[in-house]
Amino acid sequence: MAQVRNKQVLLKNYVTGFPKESDMEIVEGSITLKVPEGSSDVVLLKNLYLSCDPYMRILMYKDTPLSLGFQYSPGSPLTAFGVSKVVESGDPKYKKDDLVWGVTKWEEYSLVPSAKILFKIDHTDVPLSYYTGILGMPGMTAYGGFFELGCPKKGEKVFVSAASGAVGQLVGQFAKLTGCYVVGSAGSQEKNKLGFDEAFNYKEESNLDAALKRYFPEGIDIYFENVGGKTLDAVLLNMRSHGRIPVCGMISQYNLSQPEGVTNLANLIYKEIKMQGFIVSQFYPLYPKFLEFILPHIREGKIAYVEDIVEGLEGGPAALVSLFSGQNLGKKIVAIAPE
Amino acid sequence: MAQVRNKQVLLKNYVTGFPKESDMEIVEGSITLKVPEGSSDVVLLKNLYLSCDPYMRILMYKDTPLSLGFQYSPGSPLTAFGVSKVVESGDPKYKKDDLVWGVTKWEEYSLVPSAKILFKIDHTDVPLSYYTGILGMPGMTAYGGFFELGCPKKGEKVFVSAASGAVGQLVGQFAKLTGCYVVGSAGSQEKNKLGFDEAFNYKEESNLDAALKRYFPEGIDIYFENVGGKTLDAVLLNMRSHGRIPVCGMISQYNLSQPEGVTNLANLIYKEIKMQGFIVSQFYPLYPKFLEFILPHIREGKIAYVEDIVEGLEGGPAALVSLFSGQNLGKKIVAIAPE
Repeated sequence: MAQVRNKQVLLKNYVTGFPKESDMEIVEGSITLKVPEGSSDVVLLKNLYLSCDPYMRILMYKDTPLSLGFQYSPGSPLTAFGVSKVVESGDPKYKKDDLVWGVTKWEEYSLVPSAKILFKIDHTDVPLSYYTGILGMPGMTAYGGFFELGCPKKGEKVFVSAASGAVGQLVGQFAKLTGCYVVGSAGSQEKNKLGFDEAFNYKEESNLDAALKRYFPEGIDIYFENVGGKTLDAVLLNMRSHGRIPVCGMISQYNLSQPEGVTNLANLIYKEIKMQGFIVSQFYPLYPKFLEFILPHIREGKIAYVEDIVEGLEGGPAALVSLFSGQNLGKKIVAIAPE
Repeated sequence: MAQVRNKQVLLKNYVTGFPKESDMEIVEGSITLKVPEGSSDVVLLKNLYLSCDPYMRILMYKDTPLSLGFQYSPGSPLTAFGVSKVVESGDPKYKKDDLVWGVTKWEEYSLVPSAKILFKIDHTDVPLSYYTGILGMPGMTAYGGFFELGCPKKGEKVFVSAASGAVGQLVGQFAKLTGCYVVGSAGSQEKNKLGFDEAFNYKEESNLDAALKRYFPEGIDIYFENVGGKTLDAVLLNMRSHGRIPVCGMISQYNLSQPEGVTNLANLIYKEIKMQGFIVSQFYPLYPKFLEFILPHIREGKIAYVEDIVEGLEGGPAALVSLFSGQNLGKKIVAIAPE
C-alpha cells in the first residue's frame, strides 16, 4: 500500500521558561494514505493550515494544568487546531474532500478520531485560513467570552489586552459593533487600531495605572483579559462598579516559573466585579449562531481580520515561539499545503 | 430642651497598618432627645447593639476604596450596622419604640436619615442581638453570597475561610443544610466545628496547599472567600472545574500596606472558575425570603450562631481591633444599652 512522506513537528522535550525553536524538531516520517480496515470513527486528514495559539505553551509543561482532552509528550507531534481536507473517512459523517476544522496535529497528514473534528466547513467564499482564526476557535473565544461572559451594553467602556492577537483584535471590533468605547493594548509599535477607539503599546508605558486612567477617566466596565500579571493588577484599580472580566488567557505568565503576584484583588469586592475564566469549548454549541452573525460582517467588510501566515511546516516552531515575544501582530498561522 | 449624655466612639485618625485601640477615642458629648422641627426624613435612635465587622477597617483608610454611602473622618463617630430603638421619628414610617436595624453610629443616641434604617424588626422571640448577625447584614451576606453567587448543589465540596466569624459560621451551616461537604479554616485553636464536616487552624498548617489536598482530595467546588492572600492562592490550586468563588472579604489583606500577591489566577482559566466580588446590599431585596428560610431553622435549633458580646461602648475599640487578630470566634457585638 502506497506510503507518502509525512513531515511532522515533534515536541522534543517539556519546556521550562520561554519556549525555544529547539524545543521542537522537524522529522520526516511516512504514512499510509488509508484509514485502517474497520475503523468507523477515524478520519485521515490532509492538513492545510495549522493554528499557533498561546494555550499551546501550557500544554508544553510536564504536568500541564490544562485538560483539553489532549496532551503533549516528547517525541509526538504537537496537537492543535487546524483546517484540513478529508482524504478518507471511516466515519460516514465525512467524505473525501470535505473541508473541516478541529483538533489535528502538526504534520502533513493526520489520522484522527472523527470526534476531534469540530465542524465541517460550508462557506468557502471567505479565506479558508479564517477557520483557524475569525471563523474558528479564536473567533468563538472572542464571541463567547465577550458577549456571553462580558454581557456588554451600548456605551460601556471596554479594555482589551493582547489586542493585536487572534482573539483581541476581534473583541475590540465586537465592542465597537456593540456601541462600546474600546481601547486595546499590545506589545508592538504598530499603531494599527483595527477600528478601536484607542490603542497603546504597554511597553511604552512606565505606569500602566496612569495609562489606564488616561484612557478611562471614568473607569472600565469590561476588561477582556488575555495577559494577566501586572496588566491585570493595574486594571483592577480602574474597574467600575459591577464590572466584568472574562478571563481568556494570561499569556504574560505562561513562561514564568513564578507567576507575578496580583495584589489588587480586593477591588473585586469594592467594585462587585465578576471575573470568569473560560475555555472556548463551552461556546461551541453557539457556532451556527456565530456564523450567522459574523459571515455577513466579513462579506460586507465591516470586520477586518489581520493574519500573519508563515509558509511551510518548517516555519512552525519559529511561528509558535514568536507568539510570546510581545511583537505578535495578527493571527499566526502555518500554511502547510496548497488549498 | 432636655439634653442627655451621648457617649461616642470617634475615629481619631486615619489608620495605616493594623488598627489600634488608640486610633479611636471615647468622648462624652450630649444630645437633645428631639427630632429637629420639620425634619420629615430623620429618626432619633437609641442604639442597643453595635456590630463590629471587618469592612470597617477599609473605611479607616484616608482614601477608602469602598463606597457604601458613608465614610469615616477623624473626629466623627464610626458609622456601622446596629440594632436600635426609635426614640422619635420625623418619618411617618417609624414610630416611638419601634425596633430597627440598619446603619447607625457608634454612640448612645443617633440622629440618622431614615433611609439608613434598613428594616423594622418584627420578630422578637429570637435574641435582638441576632439582628447584627445571623438576622442582619452578616446573615444576608452569607445567604446571598453562598446561595445566589455560589449556586451550591447537593454533594458539592465547600471550603470556607474565616469560618468562625460572623459570616463564615453561617456559610458552613448553609452548606450542610444543602447537603454539601464543608470544611472551614480559622485562626483560633477552638475546635468548635459548628456542624462543619471538618475544620482546621490555618496557623498550624505550614503548607496550605497540602492541607487543602488532605481535606479535598477531589478538589473544591465552592470557595467562600473571606480572607484573600495566601489562602486564596492555595485554594486556586485546588479548585474543581466550573468552581465558584464568591468573594465576600479579604480580611488578611486589609492591614497590609502592600497586599500579598496572588500567583495562581491562571487556574481561573484552566478550571473555568467564576470569581465574583459582592457587597451585601445587592441582596437586601431578598430579606423577607431570607427570614422565611432562617427563622424556622433558628427556632428549631437547626442553625447555631456563636456571638461574642462585649458590654459597654468603652469596649468597642478593643472589640473592633480584635477582629484582625486571627483569634476571633463568633459574631463580635458591642452591647451598649439594656434592651
